[in-house]
Amino acid sequence: MQKLTLGIIGAGRIGRLHVDNLKLVPEIKIKGVSDVVIDHLETWATEKQIEVLTTDYKVLLNDPEIDAVFICSPTTTHANLIKEAAAAGKHIFCEKPVSFSVEETEEALAEVDKAGVKLQVGFNRRFDPNFKKIRSLVQDGTIGIPHILRITSRDPQPPGVDYIKTSGGLFMDMAIHDFDMARYVMGSEVVEVSAHGAVLVDPAIGEAGDIDTAIVTLKFANGALGVIDNSRQAVYGYDQRLEIFGDKGAAQADNNRATNVEVSTAESVLKEKPLYFFLERYTQAYIDEVTEFAKAILENGDLTCTGFDGLQAERIAKAAKQSLETGAPVTLEQVTEKVAN
Amino acid sequence: MQKLTLGIIGAGRIGRLHVDNLKLVPEIKIKGVSDVVIDHLETWATEKQIEVLTTDYKVLLNDPEIDAVFICSPTTTHANLIKEAAAAGKHIFCEKPVSFSVEETEEALAEVDKAGVKLQVGFNRRFDPNFKKIRSLVQDGTIGIPHILRITSRDPQPPGVDYIKTSGGLFMDMAIHDFDMARYVMGSEVVEVSAHGAVLVDPAIGEAGDIDTAIVTLKFANGALGVIDNSRQAVYGYDQRLEIFGDKGAAQADNNRATNVEVSTAESVLKEKPLYFFLERYTQAYIDEVTEFAKAILENGDLTCTGFDGLQAERIAKAAKQSLETGAPVTLEQVTEKVAN
Amino acid sequence: MQKLTLGIIGAGRIGRLHVDNLKLVPEIKIKGVSDVVIDHLETWATEKQIEVLTTDYKVLLNDPEIDAVFICSPTTTHANLIKEAAAAGKHIFCEKPVSFSVEETEEALAEVDKAGVKLQVGFNRRFDPNFKKIRSLVQDGTIGIPHILRITSRDPQPPGVDYIKTSGGLFMDMAIHDFDMARYVMGSEVVEVSAHGAVLVDPAIGEAGDIDTAIVTLKFANGALGVIDNSRQAVYGYDQRLEIFGDKGAAQADNNRATNVEVSTAESVLKEKPLYFFLERYTQAYIDEVTEFAKAILENGDLTCTGFDGLQAERIAKAAKQSLETGAPVTLEQVTEKVAN
Amino acid sequence: MQKLTLGIIGAGRIGRLHVDNLKLVPEIKIKGVSDVVIDHLETWATEKQIEVLTTDYKVLLNDPEIDAVFICSPTTTHANLIKEAAAAGKHIFCEKPVSFSVEETEEALAEVDKAGVKLQVGFNRRFDPNFKKIRSLVQDGTIGIPHILRITSRDPQPPGVDYIKTSGGLFMDMAIHDFDMARYVMGSEVVEVSAHGAVLVDPAIGEAGDIDTAIVTLKFANGALGVIDNSRQAVYGYDQRLEIFGDKGAAQADNNRATNVEVSTAESVLKEKPLYFFLERYTQAYIDEVTEFAKAILENGDLTCTGFDGLQAERIAKAAKQSLETGAPVTLEQVTEKVAN
Repeated sequence: MQKLTLGIIGAGRIGRLHVDNLKLVPEIKIKGVSDVVIDHLETWATEKQIEVLTTDYKVLLNDPEIDAVFICSPTTTHANLIKEAAAAGKHIFCEKPVSFSVEETEEALAEVDKAGVKLQVGFNRRFDPNFKKIRSLVQDGTIGIPHILRITSRDPQPPGVDYIKTSGGLFMDMAIHDFDMARYVMGSEVVEVSAHGAVLVDPAIGEAGDIDTAIVTLKFANGALGVIDNSRQAVYGYDQRLEIFGDKGAAQADNNRATNVEVSTAESVLKEKPLYFFLERYTQAYIDEVTEFAKAILENGDLTCTGFDGLQAERIAKAAKQSLETGAPVTLEQVTEKVAN
Repeated sequence: MQKLTLGIIGAGRIGRLHVDNLKLVPEIKIKGVSDVVIDHLETWATEKQIEVLTTDYKVLLNDPEIDAVFICSPTTTHANLIKEAAAAGKHIFCEKPVSFSVEETEEALAEVDKAGVKLQVGFNRRFDPNFKKIRSLVQDGTIGIPHILRITSRDPQPPGVDYIKTSGGLFMDMAIHDFDMARYVMGSEVVEVSAHGAVLVDPAIGEAGDIDTAIVTLKFANGALGVIDNSRQAVYGYDQRLEIFGDKGAAQADNNRATNVEVSTAESVLKEKPLYFFLERYTQAYIDEVTEFAKAILENGDLTCTGFDGLQAERIAKAAKQSLETGAPVTLEQVTEKVAN
Repeated sequence: MQKLTLGIIGAGRIGRLHVDNLKLVPEIKIKGVSDVVIDHLETWATEKQIEVLTTDYKVLLNDPEIDAVFICSPTTTHANLIKEAAAAGKHIFCEKPVSFSVEETEEALAEVDKAGVKLQVGFNRRFDPNFKKIRSLVQDGTIGIPHILRITSRDPQPPGVDYIKTSGGLFMDMAIHDFDMARYVMGSEVVEVSAHGAVLVDPAIGEAGDIDTAIVTLKFANGALGVIDNSRQAVYGYDQRLEIFGDKGAAQADNNRATNVEVSTAESVLKEKPLYFFLERYTQAYIDEVTEFAKAILENGDLTCTGFDGLQAERIAKAAKQSLETGAPVTLEQVTEKVAN
Repeated sequence: MQKLTLGIIGAGRIGRLHVDNLKLVPEIKIKGVSDVVIDHLETWATEKQIEVLTTDYKVLLNDPEIDAVFICSPTTTHANLIKEAAAAGKHIFCEKPVSFSVEETEEALAEVDKAGVKLQVGFNRRFDPNFKKIRSLVQDGTIGIPHILRITSRDPQPPGVDYIKTSGGLFMDMAIHDFDMARYVMGSEVVEVSAHGAVLVDPAIGEAGDIDTAIVTLKFANGALGVIDNSRQAVYGYDQRLEIFGDKGAAQADNNRATNVEVSTAESVLKEKPLYFFLERYTQAYIDEVTEFAKAILENGDLTCTGFDGLQAERIAKAAKQSLETGAPVTLEQVTEKVAN
């Protein structure tokens, strides 16, 4: 069996999650992990049978045994790490967003292109069975020509205000998943974005210069319309629903729940709340995205989610922010995918 | 427009309900009402524009203008009233059960047969849209050859013990609707009955010689099996569900609710309870059964629910009681419908 | 029992529907009906026991026995008829929209105000049990402070292009119901409207100067956001859903279906489509709105849906059209309800 | 980290499934596998890093490094293997049923008891999240005192007739899971069994001396009633539902589906069929049962499903068969759990 040897750059929550999931994939060996502070990681690394634990990610990039790296460090470091990893000939899995700047992302993708390595962006929701099914129903023509896309995407609780301040804002941090999902399901590029926002959950979010509630209307190149509604706080749990409506029908994906048990009492009939947050809802999707990354590299196959996908989602996020600020729709310049992966 | 003129024998809850529903049918005129006590009914009768209010039902039977009577008096009076009404040449709508005695019912049906009048028995659930749909899915072959029928039928609360004592018992009073439903949906006669019962809701019901919880297994002439579970008390409301399973699939009918609104809060996701009881659940079915009765008489059409249907349900109820007492399955003698309606 | 005597102006589909429903209300007597052509209505009027059938609506307005009129004629005639009926001292039920012109509606309402008569506008959906329940869950605080409102409102098939041409356009003709629903559920006025539209169902609709697909974003005075998506053609039937999301939870109303039967076969699990169109979905709501109108007049009670409600929905529709044309959000001047009903 | 070293006896479908699941548990090392024929297993064993592959299970029982064995061989071999494994001091996981003979099972359990080893029986459904939830709702009093239990358990397709012939019959082979589930959920022993059966799926099953369709009524020691319906063939997939009804409410578990996507077209509204069969439905339950087995041994904890549980399910199956043959209810002698695990 051919093996893929990996280095992990950044061992925060998402980095350690990827390590756990990668260990379920027989083709993968995790050789090394880097982070700016590592003292607290030593026991963990031993348990996970990771040979190299370092504060210098270049150790990983310079290791000839390592085939690919996972970039799980803060967003501001992504673009440079992509460039360096590409220059070192490593395939790359990069968490979303690629960067907070469309220009930086374009530069990074140019390096990836030049180096001929593969780059997958961590839009994990593309691997969710419900949304994959919806996409297949669009692609096989079941719902006909798409007319309207509706995405509801609400977090169970807002992150801390400190996080908000460096998050890039609701559109770049949170809705970027929905912008990617819109392109993924619709199979068509976004050509115009109109955003509306409000601070309804927590005034501190507004004081930090961000919004916590949004409605974004999209126009697609195929003529269809789309709308996304976001909130930083749905008290009943992670609300992740999607509906696409076309000239032959509609398909909708509901939330997942821990069980389907329904309880009837003298007061009411109850069912379970949606799974709490992304770790619960997208457990399998997180496993599937890294499994597919490994497979795509080992077999030189296609990626479900490329650097270009990362770039396009950022463009939409940027346009949404601009629309929110100007109060007017923003047209997106149409680009063709020149960045090969 | 041809009219049907009616007399109502018995103006208790169900009699007055039928009056209200009959007044929605343009073809119907209610000429008279009889009951053993009528003082409290005078204002009501005036409001309902009923000409004749009498303590003597014979006044109605002897009125040549009256085409048909509704028998809504206590069960013990049904059989004799059917015989007298038939002898008077009146068409008959009789509440369920026809009687507490299979023999009495047979005698009454013989008179109906002799007189050539129509007799409909008040198995209102046959007119419920969900159950009608299930029956049609059996009859059009959608679910194939039936293998298993499951009926859940639970009341929201038990009647008073005084009622229980004269009710004929759970099988004759309550489950008789389910026995009729089983025949209606299956389109085949019951050939064997095995009953299990328990007193779990209220010891007073047991002291009155009845049970409040039951499971009855049925074998049908077509080879299929069926099972009915009953309770006198479902605290969440009237529980009326049905499922039929065959070699090409299954069809199930759920409870109806006042609205389909679903509420998600930090505690849970709630939907409405089932509609409270038969008046709420079967509102339209009660209207439809009397509308169809009128139509069948005016147009000399077929009835959905005949005296024979009433008789067969009683036979099953009687067998269930016998099975409960003996602890053994009871075989039903098979009869063909010799009683024309 | 006190009676309300009515005249009906306009006996097209909706006028005749109201007659049928009004005949279910014991307090109501329909004395007369007017229409521009009446030859085809004679048998119908006799059957419905309507004394006066006339081509001159003034006959009804001048009849001192008539307490109130139903205006069911084409929209372009509404405003003048309201003024004349008010001047004649008649209470008024007027179909939606009151007019195609906010100014005309304002003038008509001023006359109603001056005359001191009651005016109800036919926003029948306010009487739908699902939506009434949603509103009550907002008003009793169950969902907390509202943040996001989502309405999906799609017709099963477009009207003919001839109708489209005189309809006032998708916003004034179809979405006006949703604009009213938004105000009804939110309990707050709309302050800004942003509309997006497309011609995706039928090019002929575009050639007629209208759109057939729309997404409208609303900002409310209470700070909440709302979004409505409309289509003239949902092949699976009338799609009428609503969700409101607040800081304590969310409530959603689904479509109604003829039965709740679910069929499982080797191919799939099927349930029934939504009820086909407004006559099926809003059957009871149509009855309830006229019953309440009668009651409000007889008992001098409040109306669920006033002339001011009609006016506000038109203002939103007008703003939506303007936003669609300019590509920019349109702010609504805030008015207080000076028109007493 | 403490490790548990295992031997696997029998490497058919279920044995290999357990190997795959056991490899996900970090505490477990699978040292050896035995089967009567092993040539086809060599590559597989190498891939799974299994050191010992043998045709002689005694090699595993005699290996002092091996702490516990999984008995995945044919049912007829279970009892003897349990005795030998117990005598060798190995903890035991045994597939269901323990044997086809209550007496043999009792003898085997006596040896387990004497040896003081742990024995878990493979009633995997106890680990299904839906059913675990239902049990917890009974135990925490949410549904009150149980009155009625309903289990629907239908396979998607019958096994081959050759399998049927040696299967022990529908009750011992298939319904035994439901008998265990009934005890697990109810938390009370079965005291009486009444079984009805039919051959409706395939006459060849009848010719093999078995039935393919059954309804079994249970009486529990706590007074509650229960009913199980079984079929060897549900064309829409594996049908595994359960409902418990008590004096404070009811709880029901529905089938699981691959996605919750719903598709609306001009023809109907469709959702996905139930997951196809036990491998799909109980994927996680199979993992959880072996994980818990490992944990219970390493930490000397309690088992969710003991040898006594295996014995009681067999007693019910035996009684069901007897009831089917005699046409009468069969009373179960009540035993207390003298076999410590």
